[in-house]
Amino acid sequence: MPAYQAPLRDFDFVLNELIKVQDILPSLPGYEEASQDIFTSYLEAAAQFCQQELAPLNRQGDEEGCQFDPATKSVTTPVGFKDAYKQYCELGFPALDCDPAYGGQGMPKSLAFPVMEMQCAANVAWSMYPGLSHGAYSAIHAHGTNEQKATYLPRLVDGSWTGTMCLTEPHCGTDLGLLKTRAEPNADGSYSITGTKIFISAGEHDMSDNIIHLVLARLPDAPRDVKGISLFIVPKFHQDGSRNSVFCGSLEHKMGIKANATAVINLDGAKGWLIGEANKGLACMFTMMNAARLGCGMQGLGIGEASYQGALTYARERLQMRALAGAKFPEKPADPIIVHPDVRRMLLTQKAYTEAGRALSALLALQLDIEDKHPDADARQDAADLVALLTPVAKAFMTDNGYLAANLGMQVFGGHGFIREWGMEQLVRDCRISQIYEGTNGIQAIDLLGRKVLLDQGAKLRKFSKQIHKFCQANEGNAQLAEFVGPLAKLLKEVGDITMGVGMAAMQDRDAAGAAATDYLRLVGHLTYAWLWARMAEVAYAKLETGSDAFYQAKIATARFYYAKLLPEVEALKVSIKSGAQPLMALEDEHFAF
Amino acid sequence: MPAYQAPLRDFDFVLNELIKVQDILPSLPGYEEASQDIFTSYLEAAAQFCQQELAPLNRQGDEEGCQFDPATKSVTTPVGFKDAYKQYCELGFPALDCDPAYGGQGMPKSLAFPVMEMQCAANVAWSMYPGLSHGAYSAIHAHGTNEQKATYLPRLVDGSWTGTMCLTEPHCGTDLGLLKTRAEPNADGSYSITGTKIFISAGEHDMSDNIIHLVLARLPDAPRDVKGISLFIVPKFHQDGSRNSVFCGSLEHKMGIKANATAVINLDGAKGWLIGEANKGLACMFTMMNAARLGCGMQGLGIGEASYQGALTYARERLQMRALAGAKFPEKPADPIIVHPDVRRMLLTQKAYTEAGRALSALLALQLDIEDKHPDADARQDAADLVALLTPVAKAFMTDNGYLAANLGMQVFGGHGFIREWGMEQLVRDCRISQIYEGTNGIQAIDLLGRKVLLDQGAKLRKFSKQIHKFCQANEGNAQLAEFVGPLAKLLKEVGDITMGVGMAAMQDRDAAGAAATDYLRLVGHLTYAWLWARMAEVAYAKLETGSDAFYQAKIATARFYYAKLLPEVEALKVSIKSGAQPLMALEDEHFAF
Repeated sequence: MPAYQAPLRDFDFVLNELIKVQDILPSLPGYEEASQDIFTSYLEAAAQFCQQELAPLNRQGDEEGCQFDPATKSVTTPVGFKDAYKQYCELGFPALDCDPAYGGQGMPKSLAFPVMEMQCAANVAWSMYPGLSHGAYSAIHAHGTNEQKATYLPRLVDGSWTGTMCLTEPHCGTDLGLLKTRAEPNADGSYSITGTKIFISAGEHDMSDNIIHLVLARLPDAPRDVKGISLFIVPKFHQDGSRNSVFCGSLEHKMGIKANATAVINLDGAKGWLIGEANKGLACMFTMMNAARLGCGMQGLGIGEASYQGALTYARERLQMRALAGAKFPEKPADPIIVHPDVRRMLLTQKAYTEAGRALSALLALQLDIEDKHPDADARQDAADLVALLTPVAKAFMTDNGYLAANLGMQVFGGHGFIREWGMEQLVRDCRISQIYEGTNGIQAIDLLGRKVLLDQGAKLRKFSKQIHKFCQANEGNAQLAEFVGPLAKLLKEVGDITMGVGMAAMQDRDAAGAAATDYLRLVGHLTYAWLWARMAEVAYAKLETGSDAFYQAKIATARFYYAKLLPEVEALKVSIKSGAQPLMALEDEHFAF
Repeated sequence: MPAYQAPLRDFDFVLNELIKVQDILPSLPGYEEASQDIFTSYLEAAAQFCQQELAPLNRQGDEEGCQFDPATKSVTTPVGFKDAYKQYCELGFPALDCDPAYGGQGMPKSLAFPVMEMQCAANVAWSMYPGLSHGAYSAIHAHGTNEQKATYLPRLVDGSWTGTMCLTEPHCGTDLGLLKTRAEPNADGSYSITGTKIFISAGEHDMSDNIIHLVLARLPDAPRDVKGISLFIVPKFHQDGSRNSVFCGSLEHKMGIKANATAVINLDGAKGWLIGEANKGLACMFTMMNAARLGCGMQGLGIGEASYQGALTYARERLQMRALAGAKFPEKPADPIIVHPDVRRMLLTQKAYTEAGRALSALLALQLDIEDKHPDADARQDAADLVALLTPVAKAFMTDNGYLAANLGMQVFGGHGFIREWGMEQLVRDCRISQIYEGTNGIQAIDLLGRKVLLDQGAKLRKFSKQIHKFCQANEGNAQLAEFVGPLAKLLKEVGDITMGVGMAAMQDRDAAGAAATDYLRLVGHLTYAWLWARMAEVAYAKLETGSDAFYQAKIATARFYYAKLLPEVEALKVSIKSGAQPLMALEDEHFAF
């Protein structure tokens, strides 16, 4: 595993040449100062921190894991984690995109996302401590009372306190309607909360002075389904320093992200305060959840990048066999394996998915900024619609592709990829959970097709399609881009037709949408990446008019690779979707057998 | 993780109803006694051993791993491994398909393969100790002198000695031409062998009295490429009980198969004996390697089955959400997740790939038996050709699909799949190496397309295609099978055309074959599975004429699922292959960047 190098050149390309955040940000109230220079200095500082502090802790963190002491119910994070977090706070990173009213630096998501990617690439297990904390910040910021905000936000913003999301219980993950944790009102307006939460990332640790748990629970008179869930703030320590009865019961033994403390959290009449309205906890929770889903996508992206860097470095150093067309380095005992077409296939797959994912994440970050700050309500709504539509795509498509990339990186290493010391297999293990948590990728697919596309009769999808259609129209006569624009326009039309077809089928048979969902999400993912690769090629061609530059040549070559070797997956997806639900539903449940 | 249950019903289906081994085996000299009753009793005994002895050791073996003591250079296997091996030997399993002349039971591969599958499913790390040993047996049996056979085979057959394959060195895996280990002739006809071997599975352990290493090394005057490699027998202990200077230097820390000792083996003037001809070591090595490649396929198959069993059991027990078409179990707090189309997609993918893999393995095992024993030379050659053609397919397609199945099984478990105690993530980690060792799956793809298909101008492929063509012709008017035979016949023709196209392109550009290889292997894999699923449907329909049986209904439903949801991958593969080598080769090596 080579030292991680933050992809600053590609951040610059994506932010300033492709998405052109500077065309928009300075016009958003509050982001007037977020200039390209400011971005550059933040990105360089973050790169330095991630490369020099986080990345070196990653391998050892995996070996060491977190230690739980049952006597004190405390958790010790791996050596160096606490110090790195201290530095992170001193550098002001927890405050990066937080509200200046509470000590935040007020920077846009367009800056926060690349910073998040770097953290995920360098040390995903570590990145989850501040990541979860930021989720708690967002929920309190969006739904808390002024008093709650004044109490919690400054400490979450300066990083001296961290936060968690306590949703899952042993018998309920996806189906939060089954939630059992209960909240009994106290005379003083607080609640006594009792129950067991599992899979609580960063649930207990030694990195901060206090941990603010955001806990889903039921009020005594609440409806029994998801409409009867409320959200509570449950601090580990009260204001007066006394210990609340919320304790870590144990840590899970996991496949990966071992350096992140995945805790069982026992609440035994723990004192908490309602946040947001009673029985509206699910809506509050989604403030965190939507951000967390994008965060998962960033994990897939960052790990894909880390694996690509490792594999590329190895492919240039490892000498094995000769190029089929004749020795390329006859003076060496063998050629570096990068000469072999199948190795290049693996590297280019990593590169194409990673760079498109980076473009998508920049696109979405800017939409979040517009949704948050734009003075025009229609502009805010358009941005919100695009974010809503593409959040499940970013979560599932970017994590599935990140896992693929991590596996390909390991494969490039051959047998050495399976050996822990090289670090490539850790990326596979660390990435795997991103396909599962914050809603499995199967749930993302149903969210996309059912809720985001069919529920509004395709309105959000049509808005998105219009953007792609406009791009295709604008480039109709562009000979350089024809190889991309032609297939893209064709795919755009097909996605429309398929959406219509699935929608019609779903009216007859509720299972039709569930059966198509996973294929459909990959189809929309490819439509999105095909559009982004065409746009990246457009930018690259324009830049090349002023002189040769290997960076832009590589963009065009990678776009071609994507269209030739990855995009054809849509041919399979279309056929599979059209075969409908029957092939999945025909076999009686009890006749699955072994 | 539920207790493993050997799929005895499906073994019966595949062996006796689909491949019909009993139509052939009794006519092969030496296999007259291999009746269906004999098979049944062996399979039941093996099932009992795998279920009751091996499976319970699997989880703990992963946690415990193998322990290396640097002081004594000895390795301790996890608790229970040694005892299980002792029982295995007492039951006579090491001798199962070995030559009766050396104490073997003389059973066919058609029986040995399902036994191997069960071992891989129950405990793949354990299965590799006898697995490697059998490889050494085969090499000595095929290439050893009578004296060598008399010395080593009886002990390998009774299991008191085990064996290894020592090929890889730190700087050479795929490219054995780079091998450095050297063998100096001694006056007594033996050789002094010096070098370092890595990744030696079962390289050192406490399960047997002696370990017979088969070591690739160079004679002093040998050519510097693969034509200068010879194979040597290097026992850990000499006949007189003295210790040979072949020692374990360390064990690798790995992603999975942690209970198998993957050793660095240092040879420091170790005494060895040439086996086979000088400088022909590669050919001898391939006796082991081809068997090991099929063994990898069995690992993918067994792990896929184990993961399917785990996922199916969980999907029936785990209650979460309601069926989209309305509650199926209104009396329960939620429906079992098997009602959800996307969960069924995952289970059916596991089932369809696993059952087709089992059919392919039975087909190949019978061909190995025919190759070995058939009195007619043409029949032997036909069998050998089919085995040669389909060995890379079995290795790569079965392990890629096994890894996919293991990942899907984990996904069915949601967050619990990531937790070690459930055992599902171990299957993912244990399976991963099967895509890498014994020649990476990329190497398999090049072996298939380059060596097995193009080198003989498609002769072996045409023989195989003829079988599929005959099946299609014979069922042309079969209305029940039309949904399978139509697409199969079409695909068969397309594979022929694509092969021709790639062959032509490869004459102009050596990289064309390398660029197409991985896609091509999956294409041929799907052709093979599509044929096998059509044949399985044919058998099922015939059986259903005599009455309803859920087992056969499930076969037909699974065949339909395979054709509807998995086979469409070929649409993507065709497009990707036709895009040629240029998209992979265009980017200059030095312009890959990050």
